[in-house]
Order: sequence, then structure tokens, then C-alpha cells
Amino acid sequence: MTKSIVCLQTLTDEQREAVTQASPGYTFVQSEAKNPDMNALADAEIIIGWTKNISDTVLREGGPLRWVQSWSAGVDTMPLQALEEHNICLTSASGVHSKPIAQVIFGFMLIFARKFHTAIRNQESRLWIGREHMDSTELTGKTVVIVGTGEIGSETARIAKAFDMRTVGVRRSGEPLPGFDEMFETAQLKEAVSTGDYVINTLPLTDDTHHLFDASIFSSFKEGSCYINIGRGGTTDTEALVDALNEGKLSGAGLDVFENEPLPSDHPLWGMKQVVITPHVAGATDYYADRVVAIFAENMKSYLSSGRPSRNVVDYARQY
Amino acid sequence: MTKSIVCLQTLTDEQREAVTQASPGYTFVQSEAKNPDMNALADAEIIIGWTKNISDTVLREGGPLRWVQSWSAGVDTMPLQALEEHNICLTSASGVHSKPIAQVIFGFMLIFARKFHTAIRNQESRLWIGREHMDSTELTGKTVVIVGTGEIGSETARIAKAFDMRTVGVRRSGEPLPGFDEMFETAQLKEAVSTGDYVINTLPLTDDTHHLFDASIFSSFKEGSCYINIGRGGTTDTEALVDALNEGKLSGAGLDVFENEPLPSDHPLWGMKQVVITPHVAGATDYYADRVVAIFAENMKSYLSSGRPSRNVVDYARQY
Repeated sequence: MTKSIVCLQTLTDEQREAVTQASPGYTFVQSEAKNPDMNALADAEIIIGWTKNISDTVLREGGPLRWVQSWSAGVDTMPLQALEEHNICLTSASGVHSKPIAQVIFGFMLIFARKFHTAIRNQESRLWIGREHMDSTELTGKTVVIVGTGEIGSETARIAKAFDMRTVGVRRSGEPLPGFDEMFETAQLKEAVSTGDYVINTLPLTDDTHHLFDASIFSSFKEGSCYINIGRGGTTDTEALVDALNEGKLSGAGLDVFENEPLPSDHPLWGMKQVVITPHVAGATDYYADRVVAIFAENMKSYLSSGRPSRNVVDYARQY
Repeated sequence: MTKSIVCLQTLTDEQREAVTQASPGYTFVQSEAKNPDMNALADAEIIIGWTKNISDTVLREGGPLRWVQSWSAGVDTMPLQALEEHNICLTSASGVHSKPIAQVIFGFMLIFARKFHTAIRNQESRLWIGREHMDSTELTGKTVVIVGTGEIGSETARIAKAFDMRTVGVRRSGEPLPGFDEMFETAQLKEAVSTGDYVINTLPLTDDTHHLFDASIFSSFKEGSCYINIGRGGTTDTEALVDALNEGKLSGAGLDVFENEPLPSDHPLWGMKQVVITPHVAGATDYYADRVVAIFAENMKSYLSSGRPSRNVVDYARQY
């Protein structure tokens, strides 16, 4: 039987070429998640993507499946226990969102520094009001505090250096990382945020991070600083955030995520002129498929030489 | 008589300290442009700033004045001929705007890539419309064509490399410059703009640049590209720009400058959803005075050692 790769996501010609080039000796089968080719899947050694109702077919005693390259960054919806029991290697698409999200962070920071939000709202009324921009500032020399120093945080710090910003990180261990001028432990969050002109929340939602940004933390923010949340809404006490904005403690907030999504239409955040709301789209990117294919190709190289993918291998004990 | 510096712009304590530290052996006199201290000016060897009605006092046969550090980037409103006749060195504040303007350029590019303008307008109606962002893109791998490769253009190219962009420059000579992956002559403008996802106009208005961006040039733009003008409004044929936007040739335009300013309230550009208008404020920055003081300090160092400032020395023949 020939060794085969079944892909459940539709690829462009270029992407398909990249997959087949990376996989000498393998047959490539283009299938689809909505109507999966069960015969092909039963024979697959490698699957790119996943869909429901294929577990019985592919996760069977003595079957050929060895490796699944997930199409998504998170793998919490996959049958992790069954994959582990059948000794299948699972690799995630972690990292595909770091560039678009870092660029959204700079969009928010530049909007507040240069008051683009004010200009766009004035444009709706055909108003030319130069004086509202006379106190416009720059990112140059400002301090950005990046809470969560994973791929998004590190990409943000890297670009921040090009804008001549001072970069401060906050991570559990407090250990230094390249690109960060200073690093704090999560326990020192109050001290860290007090240094920031811009405070960026890139945190996932866990028991530890729920409402981590509360009234006490906001009270430690620098007067007139900006808060940007592209992590998860539940990491922030929304009432405390609204209060910090109303009190003028924060001069701006750029928010892509909310405790309740969609943000209810009667929520006060919608009407605040110093707030810019995006509808949980910071990770959207037309580069998504190219990036997953690149992760696959890198993994395939390692799989061919050592029998095991090298990047984003899921640790079943940690569940990510 | 002690040697003296008269400053016609009000400085902060820190800025004044920087000036006096840089000027051993000189007395510093803080004056003001609206009510200049004529006695102090008559004795000044160096003037920082300028104001009307002081020429007769300071530009006199045998007077002590040797050097004027202008407070503005442009010096076209100054008495250049008289300054030259009295053999006074004039230095400009050229370069103070390059950082804020480059940051405005990235604000515009990120707004279009991530559709912040759509989000901000939807926010006015409390609308959460994620699908309008599903084709959001990134600056990553995109080509930025920078027309005019002075300090603003070079700063833009430098930051563009941090976003992993391809940088294309257009300058009269076509000679290569650091930070630019490719350089075209101005005569090759059509060819240059055809490569750009974002085309940035940083040009001054001269006889050569008037309506340089006309219907013919816009017809060579890449389908769906964005045009950003932070140079001068007169470099662009506004009707041709509106046509290119209406035809969908351009998917966005970020405009800080216009042929008529303020832009008349009945102008069609105000109402176009793919256009972001800022009221000629790209150069505004709260770092202005600090930067002029830094230019002065650098020049003073050279003046003390060689008798002549080193940076931004105006060539009276070119008039800038």
C-alpha cells in the first residue's frame, strides 16, 4: 500500500505543491471536512486538518495513521485521549496568529497616539478640526508593557524596538527574554503596569487570569495610559475598565475581546469616544493556510528524517 | 561683551538646560517671538528661532550675529537674501517631522490592512460585524512604494523592514539607498507604482511634482492597492484620485493633505468609506521642541570647534 496524506482543508495549487514537494514518497489526497473521503482516510498515515465523525475510521487498532497536523491553533475540541491511546502524534497550528495580532496591537497604539479614531469620527460629520490633533504624540521613547510573552508578545516587542519604544514584559517566571528591556513576574503586575504608556493584554483565559485586570490593577496604571486587550475578554473586569476610562485614568482602550461576545448593543463601551472596538477579529488573516502549510512542511522534514514532527507537538498531559 | 544666545521660543527647564550645557562660555537669554527683547537681540551672536521686525536690529553692519537656528523645517519665509549678505549661517529644523509622519503612514497602512476604519464606523452604530474583517490582511510580505526618499521616506522604509515588507523607493536619481530593496527614478514612476500594495507620496510641491499623480499614474496602480498622501495636496490630481477610488482601482486612500485646505465640506472624498481623512496634522508632535534643541546642541558642538554648525545648514543658492 502506498503511504498517503489526506488533507481535509482545500488548498490552493501553490499550497498543494508545497505539501507534495515536502512529502516525497507520499500520495496526496485532497478531501474536504464537510464530505470526508472515508476510504482515503482509512488508509492515511498523515491527516492535515480534522473533522467530526472520522475518529472510528482513523483511530483503529493497527491502522496506518501516525500523525495529525491540526488546522487550528487550539486543539481543545479534538479527541486528545483517543489520539494518545492510539499513539498518534498531534501537532497544532500554534503561531499562525502572532503576526496579524501584533499588527493589530500597533494599529491600536498608532490610532491612539495620532488620534485617528477622532479623525475618522470627525470625517463622518465632514469636520476638519486640526486643533484636536495638536497634542498628537509618537510611539518613540514610550514604554509598552506586554502582559503575556508568548509568540504574540514577542512579535510585539520586536516591532516595538523599530519604533524606538521601551519594552517591558510580564510573564509567570519573570525570566528575561530577547526583545524585552525589562521583565516582571506576574505577581509584580501592579508595578509593571505603572511603567506603561501602553499596556497590552495578550493572556489566555485560565483560572489564574480570570479578572486579573481588576480595579486594583487599573488603579496602578500610569495616568492617561492606554489599555489594549487582544487576549481574552474574561481576563478583564469590564466594570473596572469602564470606571478607569470614565475617571480618565485611561486615555484610551483598544478592545478586540469582551466578557460577553458579541458585546451587547446597550453596553456603555460602544459609546465611549476614547474606546476603539473590533469584533474579535485580531487573528483573522489571509495568510492562515500558507502558514499552516509551512508548519506542516517543517514538520514533514523532521518526520521523514526522525519519524517525529518537530514543531508544535501537543503534549497530551498539558492538553496543548 | 559676553557672548550670548537669544532664544525666541519658550523652552522647558530641561530644554534650557540642554542648550546651556551645550554652550559653555555663552549667556542664555530667554526671550519670546511676540515680544522680542530687542536689546538682547542686538547683542546676540546666536539666535534660536526668528520673528518679524527684528531684521533691522540683528542684521546690521558689524553686528555680533553669526548664526540663526530656525525653529521651523521650512525657511522660505525668512529673509534669506539679507542673511546671506551679512554672512550669517542659517540652520533649519529639517527632520523634526520624519518620525511622526512615518508613524502616521504606518497608522494608515494598518488601518486599511486590518479595516479599523470600518470597525470605528460600525462602532458609531453599535454594530458587531465580524464578517467584514474576514478578509483582513497583514503588512507582512507586502510591497510599499515610497515616492520621495528623504528623511520621512527613509524612516518609513526602516520601519517597513520590521514588518517584513518589501521596500521600493522612487527618487530623482534612482540611486540606491539603505533600507530600500529596489529604487526607481522619478521618470519610472508608472513602473514603480505598479509593484505596490501601498503607495506613499512624501513629495514636496514644486513645478516638477504638481499633479505628478494624475489619471495616467493611477491607471498604473496595482488593482486594489492603497494610496497614502502625507506630502502636499497639489502633487495629486484630486479628480483623478476620486475616479480611481470610484472605479475600485484603489481599495483605500489615507489623505492628510489636499489641493484645497481645509477640504471643502461638500467634497466627495469626505463621504467615501474607503477613504480616511486627517486634517493636515501628520507632522504634529509633542517632541518638536526637544528635537530642535537636539539639532541646536549638535550644531553648537560643531560651531564651538570649527566656527560652523554641521547639520541642516541652509544653502542660500538652493533656498533650503
